[in-house]
Amino acid sequence: MSPTNHQFRLAARPAGMPKREDWKYTEEPVPEPRDGELLVKVLYLSLDPAMRSWMNEGKSYIPPVGIGEVMRAAGVGRVVSSKHPGFSAGDHVLGVFGVQEYARSDGKGVTQVDPRIPLPVYLGVLGISGMTAYFGLLDIGKPNPGDTVVVSGAAGSVGMVAGQIAKLKGCRVVGIAGGPDKCRYLVEELGFDAAIDYKSEDVKKALRTHCPKGVDVYFDNVGGDILDAVLTQLARGARIIICGAISQYNNTGPAKGPANYMSLLVNRASMTGMVVFDYAPRYGEAAREMAGWMAQGKLKSREDIVQGLETFPDTLLKLFKGENTGKLVLQVARE
Amino acid sequence: MSPTNHQFRLAARPAGMPKREDWKYTEEPVPEPRDGELLVKVLYLSLDPAMRSWMNEGKSYIPPVGIGEVMRAAGVGRVVSSKHPGFSAGDHVLGVFGVQEYARSDGKGVTQVDPRIPLPVYLGVLGISGMTAYFGLLDIGKPNPGDTVVVSGAAGSVGMVAGQIAKLKGCRVVGIAGGPDKCRYLVEELGFDAAIDYKSEDVKKALRTHCPKGVDVYFDNVGGDILDAVLTQLARGARIIICGAISQYNNTGPAKGPANYMSLLVNRASMTGMVVFDYAPRYGEAAREMAGWMAQGKLKSREDIVQGLETFPDTLLKLFKGENTGKLVLQVARE
Repeated sequence: MSPTNHQFRLAARPAGMPKREDWKYTEEPVPEPRDGELLVKVLYLSLDPAMRSWMNEGKSYIPPVGIGEVMRAAGVGRVVSSKHPGFSAGDHVLGVFGVQEYARSDGKGVTQVDPRIPLPVYLGVLGISGMTAYFGLLDIGKPNPGDTVVVSGAAGSVGMVAGQIAKLKGCRVVGIAGGPDKCRYLVEELGFDAAIDYKSEDVKKALRTHCPKGVDVYFDNVGGDILDAVLTQLARGARIIICGAISQYNNTGPAKGPANYMSLLVNRASMTGMVVFDYAPRYGEAAREMAGWMAQGKLKSREDIVQGLETFPDTLLKLFKGENTGKLVLQVARE
Repeated sequence: MSPTNHQFRLAARPAGMPKREDWKYTEEPVPEPRDGELLVKVLYLSLDPAMRSWMNEGKSYIPPVGIGEVMRAAGVGRVVSSKHPGFSAGDHVLGVFGVQEYARSDGKGVTQVDPRIPLPVYLGVLGISGMTAYFGLLDIGKPNPGDTVVVSGAAGSVGMVAGQIAKLKGCRVVGIAGGPDKCRYLVEELGFDAAIDYKSEDVKKALRTHCPKGVDVYFDNVGGDILDAVLTQLARGARIIICGAISQYNNTGPAKGPANYMSLLVNRASMTGMVVFDYAPRYGEAAREMAGWMAQGKLKSREDIVQGLETFPDTLLKLFKGENTGKLVLQVARE
C-alpha cells in the first residue's frame, strides 16, 4: 500500500463563518517529485486570519483559492526526497505548502530553516506574523520613543510581536484583547504598560484612562467598533496601520466602515494599509534583528499548537472566536 | 442716530441642517476701536462647509462657536478707522471678521490685500479654499505627472482649484460634481479630462470608465457613498486626502464610515486628514505661485456671490444643497 496524502480543499465559498461543508477532505497517493522538484512532509501549518479572505471571490492582494484547490497555507516541513539541486532529503524548509500532509514543490518561495530554533517559531515571530508586525509598526507606524502605541488583537500572533517591538523602541504600549487571561499575559509576560479587555470594558473610556496624551500609533488587526473607538482618541499626527480587520471577515453584509474617520482630519492623522509580501526583500534583515532580540530574551514567542490535520476546519475558527493566544499553528506530523 | 452693526449669532446648536431659529439676528451700535485696535467694514464673507462643524459642540481642530457668539467667518473688508500702528483707514484687509457688518479687531490674523485683484478672490483661490487645495493636493496627494487624480465636490471652491492644479502638474483629472452644468463647466471651462455627475450616474461604474488604471490620488471633499465608490477603484499606493465630508455634516446620526476602507490594505494606500491652518507659514509661497498661474491664465477663479447679510442663513445652505459653483461668497456691503 503506497502512502496517502490527505488534504483539505475548498468545496464552496463560505457565507459568514466557514462551515464544515465548505471543505472537502480528500485522499490521494503521495506524489513523486519530478526533475527540479522536491517532496516535503508537512510538519506545521500556519493558520492566519487572512486565510478567510483568500476564500472569497474577487480582487484582493493575492488571487483567491479556487474551488477544488488545496487550501493555501504557509508551513514548515522536512524534505522527504529531492530532485532539486537546492534541497536534500532531511532539510527543514519553510514555504506555502497548503493544508495537506505532503507537498510537491518546484522550490520557488521555499527556504531552508535551521532546526535548532523550534520549527513553529518560523511561522510566528520569524514568519509572516513577525514580519507583518515588524514592517507594519516600524515602516508605517514610525514610532518615536515616548509615543503611545495601541495594538488590537494584541494577544494574537502579529499583535504580540508589534507590541513587544514598540516596547523595545521605548514606547508606552497598550494592548486590546479579549478576556482576562490574555490581558494578564500581555502585561505580566510581555511587559505591555496596560491591557484593555474589550469583552468586559468600555474600550473608549479605557483608552482615555490609559492613553492620556492620545494615541500616536495604532496597529489595527481587528477593524469594527474597536477601530472606531481608537479614532476618538488619536493624538495629533497619529499613524494608523491597517493590517487586518478580523472582526469583519465573516460579515455576510458590507463591512462596518469607521464612522469616526473624520478624526483623521481633526488630528491630521493617517491610515495606511500594508501587505507584508511587499517587504519580502527585507525579510532577512528583520529576521536577523528579531532572532537577536529573542536570543537576548527581549522578544518572546508563543505558539498555540493544535494537533492533527483533520481538526483543520474547527481549528481555523479559533482565530475568529478569539480562542488562540499567540500564533495558531496546526501540527500535521511529528518531526 | 449712530450707525448700527447687524450680526448673526448662534442661537442654538442645530440638529441636522441649520434652521432659521438656530440663528439670532442682532443689532448693536458700531463699536469704537480702542488703542491698538482697528475697525473694519466687512465687504465680503467666505461661506464654507466647515462652518457647519464649528456649530457643533465638542473637540475639533478649532473650538466651536459659543451660543450667543457672532458666527465665525473669514472676510474681506475696508478699514474704517484705526488706532493700530499696522493699519490705516482705507486699507483693504483679510481676516476672520465674523458674520456682521462691522468688526473690531486687534489686528491678529489680519493681513492687507491688494485691491487691484478683485476682493472675493482673496476668499477663493487666494484664500483658505485655494490654500486648502494647494497644500492638500501637493503636500499630501503628492501627484506625479501621468497620475490619475479624482476630485469630489469638484465644482466647489476647493475642488475646482485642486483639479486645476493637478492638471498643471500633468495629471489626468476626473471631477465628481452634481448636475450637468457643473460637469460641463469642469470639462469645458477648467479643462478637466472627465466629469462624473453623481446625481445621474453610477459613480463606481463611471470611475471604472474614466480611470482605467485606477485612482492614484483622491481629493475628498464629500465623504459618504462617493468616498466608498472611489475606494473600490484605487491604484496601488494611492493617496486619499481627507479634506472634508460635506455629505455627512448635517447627519443627525453617526457619520457613514467608508465600508470599503480595507481597499487601503489591498492597495497599500493611505488616507490622510489635513487642516489648512497648519500651512499658515507657507500661505505666502502658495499665494504667489497661484497668483502667477492666474496671471498666465492657467488657473481660473470663480465666485458665486450672493448679496445681503440678511440672506446668510439661507445662503449658507446652498453649500449643503450643492447649489453653488465656485466659491460661495456673501456680499455684505458695496466697496
